[in-house]
Amino acid sequence: MLEQLKKEVYEANMLLPKYNLVTFTWGNVSGVDRDAKLFVIKPSGVPYEDLTPDDMVVVDFDGNKVEGKLNPSSDTATHAVLYSNFPTIGGVVHTHSSFATSWAQAGRDIPCYGTTHADYYYGDIPCLRVLTGEEIDEGYEKNTGILIVNEFARLGRDPEAVPAVLCKNHGPFAWGKDPVDAVHSAVVLEECAKMAFRTELINPKVAPAPQVLQDKHYYRKHGANAYYGQGGTK
Amino acid sequence: MLEQLKKEVYEANMLLPKYNLVTFTWGNVSGVDRDAKLFVIKPSGVPYEDLTPDDMVVVDFDGNKVEGKLNPSSDTATHAVLYSNFPTIGGVVHTHSSFATSWAQAGRDIPCYGTTHADYYYGDIPCLRVLTGEEIDEGYEKNTGILIVNEFARLGRDPEAVPAVLCKNHGPFAWGKDPVDAVHSAVVLEECAKMAFRTELINPKVAPAPQVLQDKHYYRKHGANAYYGQGGTK
Amino acid sequence: MLEQLKKEVYEANMLLPKYNLVTFTWGNVSGVDRDAKLFVIKPSGVPYEDLTPDDMVVVDFDGNKVEGKLNPSSDTATHAVLYSNFPTIGGVVHTHSSFATSWAQAGRDIPCYGTTHADYYYGDIPCLRVLTGEEIDEGYEKNTGILIVNEFARLGRDPEAVPAVLCKNHGPFAWGKDPVDAVHSAVVLEECAKMAFRTELINPKVAPAPQVLQDKHYYRKHGANAYYGQGGTK
Amino acid sequence: MLEQLKKEVYEANMLLPKYNLVTFTWGNVSGVDRDAKLFVIKPSGVPYEDLTPDDMVVVDFDGNKVEGKLNPSSDTATHAVLYSNFPTIGGVVHTHSSFATSWAQAGRDIPCYGTTHADYYYGDIPCLRVLTGEEIDEGYEKNTGILIVNEFARLGRDPEAVPAVLCKNHGPFAWGKDPVDAVHSAVVLEECAKMAFRTELINPKVAPAPQVLQDKHYYRKHGANAYYGQGGTK
Repeated sequence: MLEQLKKEVYEANMLLPKYNLVTFTWGNVSGVDRDAKLFVIKPSGVPYEDLTPDDMVVVDFDGNKVEGKLNPSSDTATHAVLYSNFPTIGGVVHTHSSFATSWAQAGRDIPCYGTTHADYYYGDIPCLRVLTGEEIDEGYEKNTGILIVNEFARLGRDPEAVPAVLCKNHGPFAWGKDPVDAVHSAVVLEECAKMAFRTELINPKVAPAPQVLQDKHYYRKHGANAYYGQGGTK
Repeated sequence: MLEQLKKEVYEANMLLPKYNLVTFTWGNVSGVDRDAKLFVIKPSGVPYEDLTPDDMVVVDFDGNKVEGKLNPSSDTATHAVLYSNFPTIGGVVHTHSSFATSWAQAGRDIPCYGTTHADYYYGDIPCLRVLTGEEIDEGYEKNTGILIVNEFARLGRDPEAVPAVLCKNHGPFAWGKDPVDAVHSAVVLEECAKMAFRTELINPKVAPAPQVLQDKHYYRKHGANAYYGQGGTK
Repeated sequence: MLEQLKKEVYEANMLLPKYNLVTFTWGNVSGVDRDAKLFVIKPSGVPYEDLTPDDMVVVDFDGNKVEGKLNPSSDTATHAVLYSNFPTIGGVVHTHSSFATSWAQAGRDIPCYGTTHADYYYGDIPCLRVLTGEEIDEGYEKNTGILIVNEFARLGRDPEAVPAVLCKNHGPFAWGKDPVDAVHSAVVLEECAKMAFRTELINPKVAPAPQVLQDKHYYRKHGANAYYGQGGTK
Repeated sequence: MLEQLKKEVYEANMLLPKYNLVTFTWGNVSGVDRDAKLFVIKPSGVPYEDLTPDDMVVVDFDGNKVEGKLNPSSDTATHAVLYSNFPTIGGVVHTHSSFATSWAQAGRDIPCYGTTHADYYYGDIPCLRVLTGEEIDEGYEKNTGILIVNEFARLGRDPEAVPAVLCKNHGPFAWGKDPVDAVHSAVVLEECAKMAFRTELINPKVAPAPQVLQDKHYYRKHGANAYYGQGGTK
């Protein structure tokens, strides 16, 4: 069932250790089949070196396991909410990558300080509030997803233009058009978080990059007038 | 004698360079046999690349060598006190890992700033005082162990729920249910120390994560209602 | 066409991942043939692991493609302006290397704090202003090159003595007598940026190195009286 | 001539890239033959990957080349002064290792914040002043050595108990009983410099480790009552 997607999701998961985004089992990638309304996700707590494509778990949009011998990631309900509410995304990643998690722990949005950030994200990377005790008790992982969706709506942010978010005192979620693209976003997020950290230490009074420069770089890579790369591909 | 445990302790020691927790010989792992009231520990000052399972030294709970051609780690007496007084632990690790040691040198507890920390440690990681001149003269390594045991009692901390400690101006000790689990704790400690360092530089006024979030993550992985992983295993 | 130069430029590009100067496709190296008034540059958006010497693109000094099946780097027009106006340079590099980019994002010149810097750069590494909206609209990449050339003239800086620059909120450009030498400069720039960052955190009141020491080290390696190395070569 | 020492010095030099202490050719190791009153040193500006034992250069205590087809390191005169004046040392290392150089650029002694430092160095690592213009003109490298020797005497520091020093706005020199031991000191210096940097950022009001703890650790590894290791060896 969904053998090709399982392979893709497996390979995207294996990129997490390759790009130094995970320690032990602290991360998971999923990928969606929109027609089947199902997604495939890493099993919970299995070390990357032991993982096989066959271990991937198939889940529906309510977060119920449909196929698989192992338990899906404990963050499965968050992925499910994101797929249900962000109709254009094809892959989701959660990690505890060091610099992005440090910003999440600090409870701060990551400002757009330069073109590296502007090439991928339109505006800052928002850091959302902690869930209330009631939200945590009622359904921690599901309500994490609902908070992301609601806050993006409230803040007027487009999930395609800002494919990442920080959950306060927790860590980042990132997404993309497919599982590998979602990992790509998680890598860029970590780089931007690292450089923003250093930027502020070098100049504590630094301001975000001028909007005109952010626009130039964002639209050089995205939309109808993009001219970066070999045509069409990001 | 204790051949299986020697192999286990040897392999756990070899994880220290693998996880970049040691420079030269600055670290040691031990593992206990509770029935025999003996533990096995790395020999003192032997480079990791020269180490063999056979070099491991067998020691009793008073820190006396029982078997082995080499001198045991100079920190043996600390390990002995921990095994005597923390009846549920099965492995102990000492390193000079860079970020944890920096917190120890700074003389500060590591606050729980996020779920990465809360997944493993219940509350902050305490940093204990330096021994007095008298305690140092009387038995430096033994009194280091006694201080850890006494301070955990005085602070009301459970060594199972907080499997690591910082010794001021020195470095960390960590423990676990077996030698590999103890190394696991030392790795997580270093990650938490690194992210706490960065978190405070990003937001100097940061507060610890809300208790309700710490509880959620700690109990998602520990105790009767844990649901992380594939059932029972951490 | 220019097969030898293509090979050289290809190899210099492959040094960027080797020296950890790039993530994904965030960098490009070019090399010039002064007689032919042509230069060779990396294609846009092609991952380093897929690159071959044959993929290199031949471009003239106005930035027009002369040969090649792929689009040249989106930064090609900047390279073209540098070759046109800095007659002694033979290679140009652009990266988003982490520390140099952090200084660029912070909008600060990198002061010369020591001999590591003085061995390669005479004086600080200047950080230039952001282009105006008009300059961006009229020709972002070309005007980036023109700004570099004009600012070096206005500041009285010699591009041979200062083979690198920071573009505010963007990142570094570096150059050298050939493509490999330009990469060499990009590596040194990153090291100097990293150490200057740490130097200021260790001593927030630090001043640049005394001019007499800067002169000693710069002229130990450059000019008629140089005595570093094996004669003539840097 | 001195074939065994050349091999030893070559191998010690090759440890510099192994321990990430050098970029390009920014470092050199030498080793002495006290009976012959000669020492062997790396040639100037030769990349580590091209180095062979045969490239090593033999020099006398006045810094004159005695044998070798290549020019000796440009820092040769500094090594010569150290061998002449510190009669118990057998190897000398100079690097631009990142954290130690950052402290040198910051112009600060590295305080002893913990036992990692106290295990190897008795007291802080001194940072010496910059040479005057006259001293630089008269003989930069020789006068660097003379300054180290004079300052150690003036400060009452024993080069055996403090086998490293920082030269302001330049970088570290380290030494030891033989070339490998000198590299060992350079590695420890870099680790101590890194942790001291982080320690001060975690606690800006931090004080050095209590003297009684420094003494305990230093003398646990050095002198007649040392008990670390397998007897006699450090």
